[in-house]
Amino acid sequence: MSFRASHLLGIEHLHPTEITTLLDLADQYAEHNRIGRAHRDVLEGLTQINMFFENSTRTQASFEIAGKRLGADVMNMAMQASSIKKGETLIDTALTLNAMRPDLLVVRHPNSGAVNLLAEKVNCAVLNAGDGRHEHPTQALLDALTIRRAKGRLHRLSIAICGDVAHSRVARSNIMLLGKMENRVRLVGPPTLLPSGVEEFGVEVFHDMREGLRDVDVVMMLRLQKERMDGGFIPSEREYFHRYGLDAEKLSYAKDDAIVMHPGPMNRGVEIDGTIADDINRSVIQEQVEMGVAVRMAAMDLLARNLRAARGAKAAGIGTGVMV
Amino acid sequence: MSFRASHLLGIEHLHPTEITTLLDLADQYAEHNRIGRAHRDVLEGLTQINMFFENSTRTQASFEIAGKRLGADVMNMAMQASSIKKGETLIDTALTLNAMRPDLLVVRHPNSGAVNLLAEKVNCAVLNAGDGRHEHPTQALLDALTIRRAKGRLHRLSIAICGDVAHSRVARSNIMLLGKMENRVRLVGPPTLLPSGVEEFGVEVFHDMREGLRDVDVVMMLRLQKERMDGGFIPSEREYFHRYGLDAEKLSYAKDDAIVMHPGPMNRGVEIDGTIADDINRSVIQEQVEMGVAVRMAAMDLLARNLRAARGAKAAGIGTGVMV
Amino acid sequence: MSFRASHLLGIEHLHPTEITTLLDLADQYAEHNRIGRAHRDVLEGLTQINMFFENSTRTQASFEIAGKRLGADVMNMAMQASSIKKGETLIDTALTLNAMRPDLLVVRHPNSGAVNLLAEKVNCAVLNAGDGRHEHPTQALLDALTIRRAKGRLHRLSIAICGDVAHSRVARSNIMLLGKMENRVRLVGPPTLLPSGVEEFGVEVFHDMREGLRDVDVVMMLRLQKERMDGGFIPSEREYFHRYGLDAEKLSYAKDDAIVMHPGPMNRGVEIDGTIADDINRSVIQEQVEMGVAVRMAAMDLLARNLRAARGAKAAGIGTGVMV
Repeated sequence: MSFRASHLLGIEHLHPTEITTLLDLADQYAEHNRIGRAHRDVLEGLTQINMFFENSTRTQASFEIAGKRLGADVMNMAMQASSIKKGETLIDTALTLNAMRPDLLVVRHPNSGAVNLLAEKVNCAVLNAGDGRHEHPTQALLDALTIRRAKGRLHRLSIAICGDVAHSRVARSNIMLLGKMENRVRLVGPPTLLPSGVEEFGVEVFHDMREGLRDVDVVMMLRLQKERMDGGFIPSEREYFHRYGLDAEKLSYAKDDAIVMHPGPMNRGVEIDGTIADDINRSVIQEQVEMGVAVRMAAMDLLARNLRAARGAKAAGIGTGVMV
Repeated sequence: MSFRASHLLGIEHLHPTEITTLLDLADQYAEHNRIGRAHRDVLEGLTQINMFFENSTRTQASFEIAGKRLGADVMNMAMQASSIKKGETLIDTALTLNAMRPDLLVVRHPNSGAVNLLAEKVNCAVLNAGDGRHEHPTQALLDALTIRRAKGRLHRLSIAICGDVAHSRVARSNIMLLGKMENRVRLVGPPTLLPSGVEEFGVEVFHDMREGLRDVDVVMMLRLQKERMDGGFIPSEREYFHRYGLDAEKLSYAKDDAIVMHPGPMNRGVEIDGTIADDINRSVIQEQVEMGVAVRMAAMDLLARNLRAARGAKAAGIGTGVMV
Repeated sequence: MSFRASHLLGIEHLHPTEITTLLDLADQYAEHNRIGRAHRDVLEGLTQINMFFENSTRTQASFEIAGKRLGADVMNMAMQASSIKKGETLIDTALTLNAMRPDLLVVRHPNSGAVNLLAEKVNCAVLNAGDGRHEHPTQALLDALTIRRAKGRLHRLSIAICGDVAHSRVARSNIMLLGKMENRVRLVGPPTLLPSGVEEFGVEVFHDMREGLRDVDVVMMLRLQKERMDGGFIPSEREYFHRYGLDAEKLSYAKDDAIVMHPGPMNRGVEIDGTIADDINRSVIQEQVEMGVAVRMAAMDLLARNLRAARGAKAAGIGTGVMV
């Protein structure tokens, strides 16, 4: 099998063939979801725990639907109301849940690196559902699947990632994934919202939207994350929309068949015009959500296969790593 | 089949034969629930999402039990803690969930009409679990089933709806349902708590409890919803109980075999005397809760049949509406 | 069968043979959990409701995993956000849920005795998941199972329960269970954190940790529950750790093979040194969590058997008590 990872912590350490394996499987799940074909046996008897230390209705729901469609027992832990309050550390919480012998742990945490740390301590497969400004791998994978389905390929495309890149783990994971698959990635936004030293990733930087969108295949808008801006420059929404908000005029600089993406939730009238968001000829925003379920099904399926193989190897006395 | 609706948004547009079809099926489920007979196949493979924008332990629990008894995958979305906070609109939230391809969407919302609006945007069956002061159809249906089981019929009964009618979607749905089934409905309460222009519904209005209860078959008490009273007249609880609270003396004006109902949660000693509420010879309040599960099972069963038929028709190339 | 209880409300009224029966079954479940062997049929078709009036991530998760592993439909009710707020009493809430015909009710409540009161009102099996300072029976049972597995027996052991005994329902249930099984129990802590009149339970009291730990088989640490201390003496954490915190030096007074326990969540550096907590040669803290799932599976299995037998007896016309 060409998907060898024990956890899905980020895009950074995934091999391009692992990405392709996962997207191929997700594509199948997407089709089966559309005709209501069930796959209850895939995760049957396995326990999936969603540990969200940050609220996220859409991402948690997507993982929950994905797990239930595959037959897992899915549990949502309200971590804000948890033992953390009683002075327990993240590691103790992880060890406690681990002792209950879950199989899949889906974790969102406000601190970059917290999910990797947690994965070192447990005996199950860990999926990163977003950690700080670090990674959000399933979002990048669902974006990739959406692009591949719309464009027929996932290489040699020109893709503009626009807006608040500096605060975005979505952008970070996407830059890595799209780079690995040999696309040309542009970052478009005001200097204050672009990360420094980003040229090392092999991306081009634009501060003018029209220049940045010229002839691209994909326009990927980001949410203006005002809640993550500590001090520094905060643009007025009106000024931001005027300069960086996607509207029909700015979009006209992209290719005629360019698609428009947004990870949600959208600030309509801030980073994107509502008319563009709702234009079914250009916007694939709803398709992104749909692919989210399929990608998470594929990721949990592949990780569960590796988990079972590792446990089988352990039962058979074959030495392996921490994972089993 | 005589139940043709794609959604259960209110009583207003239901035909009497649809009501009877639903109650007949609910009656069967009620009996099967009592003997623990399972029906896991009815909603197997379907995803039910409970979106409660207002908290309601009892209603949400009732829908959750109903869905699980029929084999659905049930998900509860904590909407107060959701993307709504991040500036997303109700419609975007609905479209996002819709893209995850749920089959049944149970929605409670503080704004009248919000659930109807949402139903126009999605491809699944929507059940209104209460919207503002508009409708609460499953409550009216469970009340109807409870009455029919206690009285042996659901027509030509005299029914008094008492108390805070003005703020009550329960009352509004009940007035419509009981009227459609050709019962005589009386509204009893102080002028400030009765809606204006209500005579158009063909109801009688009483401001004196004893007069209003005289010779009725059913006494339906409502909760005094102090949290919904903005300004205006707020009676003291003691004064309110004295004039409009149901006690043995006032109940003696009703027929000897009149039943006492309350949608819960009760304010004991405010709108109802605790002794009456607990009198198993008169009160059917616990039976109402029990019938709630049965009615919701029936509603979701019938809507799922229509949903599957519509999807089958679409797959076969037969044009239909937005619903498929 | 030697387990006759209809509810699991506390250790107080359990017979030693009932405790042994439950632990024997839990031991089997623990082994089956380790090899992923399923038992979906045990609670299939039954509804388990977790009513937590106090937050507890770990205990609720443990009951939820236990129920799902046995095939129950598990529902979590967020009681803090419930009808209680609307002025409904605990009893009305219980009667309402009861009318929905659940089979197993798992209840945590801040008031001592609340769970017993509730059990009198419902037709299903009630499990106490902790009530005030009264009892926490599944914690005592999981501690007992952990001890029995580590020591090979659950009698004639010397066990020190250390720290904040006065505020601990865990300690109270453990003192009763360990006493019933004929162990020697010592309470160790400052006078202000030990309950008065405790000698009647047949325990020894120590105010010096080293004396209290001398030659014991089991060191059971308790969490310093600062949130329950109303006024009175509140020690500084540093001073507390110096005198009563478990570290290697104090532990050296216990037997060489003494095990270290903690019900969690831990205050590292307050009642226990992190190094001791993580020492897999001494600490069985993770095993306690694992045994928690097994003990709850066994408890719900046994209660469901009794529930089904009682309902069968009722259906066959054999009179029994409130329970059926």
